Amino acid sequence: MTPEALLDGVLHGEPVAQRRAIAKAITLLESTRTDHRAQGDALLTALLPHTGQSFRLGISGVPGVGKSTFIEALGLFLIQQGHRVAVLTVDPSSTVSGGSILGDKTRMEHLSVHPQAYIRPSPSSGTLGGVAEKTREAMLVCEAAGYDIVIVETVGVGQSETAVAGMTDMFVLMQLPNAGDDLQAIKKGVMEIADLVAINKADIDKNAATRAEAQITSSLRLLGMHGNPDHAAHGALWQPRVLQISALLGQGVDGFWDAVTLYRSMQTGNGRLALRREQQALAWMWERIDAGLKSAFRQHPRVRELLPALRADVAAGRIAASTAARNLLAAQSGQALPAID
Amino acid sequence: MTPEALLDGVLHGEPVAQRRAIAKAITLLESTRTDHRAQGDALLTALLPHTGQSFRLGISGVPGVGKSTFIEALGLFLIQQGHRVAVLTVDPSSTVSGGSILGDKTRMEHLSVHPQAYIRPSPSSGTLGGVAEKTREAMLVCEAAGYDIVIVETVGVGQSETAVAGMTDMFVLMQLPNAGDDLQAIKKGVMEIADLVAINKADIDKNAATRAEAQITSSLRLLGMHGNPDHAAHGALWQPRVLQISALLGQGVDGFWDAVTLYRSMQTGNGRLALRREQQALAWMWERIDAGLKSAFRQHPRVRELLPALRADVAAGRIAASTAARNLLAAQSGQALPAID
Repeated sequence: MTPEALLDGVLHGEPVAQRRAIAKAITLLESTRTDHRAQGDALLTALLPHTGQSFRLGISGVPGVGKSTFIEALGLFLIQQGHRVAVLTVDPSSTVSGGSILGDKTRMEHLSVHPQAYIRPSPSSGTLGGVAEKTREAMLVCEAAGYDIVIVETVGVGQSETAVAGMTDMFVLMQLPNAGDDLQAIKKGVMEIADLVAINKADIDKNAATRAEAQITSSLRLLGMHGNPDHAAHGALWQPRVLQISALLGQGVDGFWDAVTLYRSMQTGNGRLALRREQQALAWMWERIDAGLKSAFRQHPRVRELLPALRADVAAGRIAASTAARNLLAAQSGQALPAID
Repeated sequence: MTPEALLDGVLHGEPVAQRRAIAKAITLLESTRTDHRAQGDALLTALLPHTGQSFRLGISGVPGVGKSTFIEALGLFLIQQGHRVAVLTVDPSSTVSGGSILGDKTRMEHLSVHPQAYIRPSPSSGTLGGVAEKTREAMLVCEAAGYDIVIVETVGVGQSETAVAGMTDMFVLMQLPNAGDDLQAIKKGVMEIADLVAINKADIDKNAATRAEAQITSSLRLLGMHGNPDHAAHGALWQPRVLQISALLGQGVDGFWDAVTLYRSMQTGNGRLALRREQQALAWMWERIDAGLKSAFRQHPRVRELLPALRADVAAGRIAASTAARNLLAAQSGQALPAID
């Protein structure tokens, strides 16, 4: 498929041809070959004017919280309302082992075969930063293809929640009706970035779910009190909230979507949504620059030659870490480096 | 002063000459001039064999918690026991404004004039990373000069606590007897890195201090439960603990030092102290490499030329962040870059 045909297929293809074009485009963007990257960049730039109209929803929760069941119920509900839904995944476990905590798309058996849904499992290699980048780019492809709701799911492992919150318009944390999880989420700084907390499996123990709802609500309030309002907002500001759902029984999906819709309208009205996207894009650029600088550094022949001995010297206390760093930087640049702040 | 005279002065100078040599050495290391950095690196490498025998104690707490009063009491107590005490400061506020939350050394009026103490205020320019580096290097100078207790103090602002915990053997968090601080410290992930929590001003409200002690003890236990033991340790493992002090009345200083001494002996016995120093040195090396890479990138003429337009394109959604990153990296390297993971 020529690049032009690929672009045309993603933007205007008939259903079957479009799915094939989307899959090919994402595969191209996932490739690490230099010539593929150049083609991928050209494709992305051509797709970009057609992106940005969809709503990007991040959903996180520990394994067993019921993410797939909920996303399937939500996806089918949204399709019924006339939406087209893409589901992408950032799975940090897949980057280490090639295996995946989240499994593949067969988890959502009805949604995955629906013509109005597109489900793509996590890229299975690279660092978390690399996987996050590929997922962001896949998101842009789906948006250009007209999927107006993009759901990005992740598990509560490592830094993947921050990565997903950093690429979506709204970040939802799914919790079990179990008070013990509360402190853990606070500890990891996840509660802090949640725009909405959904307590799943509320049907199993209504009392526990209600206690959890009260507790998390009060935690969110405390966290909010300490937060720094970084920008004066015009119009009402969304306050993170908590609700109960039962993904298995399909209960609470409509209430969940009402909350998402309210969030979207408030944050659009007060300018926060546009600001968030702008900040995300710039942060993403710098994150990729940092990754590229580190990668080029570690691959530099002189650095590879000097690093083992210098690392050993630093570990043994024979040379100051800052001196070793300056020596390595000078080796890479092939000259005396300017002083660092 | 020649480099040789400086080295000799730090290592073997008579009291007055040694103080002068220490001050000159630290000033040299704080300089950003390229020729000074080269001399500084040579000096550090010569000093390094004489470092590492001291105990490095980090102390953090919000402004008003009573750090200076406590450090003065502790320092005088330690000198009475035959120690030589250096006090260094990482003050993130000084890096922004040139002003300082922590003020200058006149805060500790008795300690600052004591011949067995050396007090150096925070470097007052550069990023937090740069200030932390200078403080680490000043710490090495003091160690080589025979100060066997080095205290590094910081305020609970920004990331400075992580920086100080990352350069010391033990990290102490000072808290007021005020339960509201508790969640805030957990939120910021500071409680997690504390080896000891000291509740100051316990004389003012004994009941509040005792409640705070119980609450923080239980938080530490919960945080510990969720922690990952990253290395099998031989011998007993230190568990973070809480104690009450009153710096103003000089109460609890001996109990505090007993806890520090127990920590030091346990963590030496089980190998954690050596492991912590090794990991700190390597992390410091990589942190400095990253800072150097970023600095060289931002100073590159081609990058400076292209960045404003690309940044605007990314913010406006005209170009994908990853594409902009690759263009900038290629501009710096003057060639097509290898693909990033």
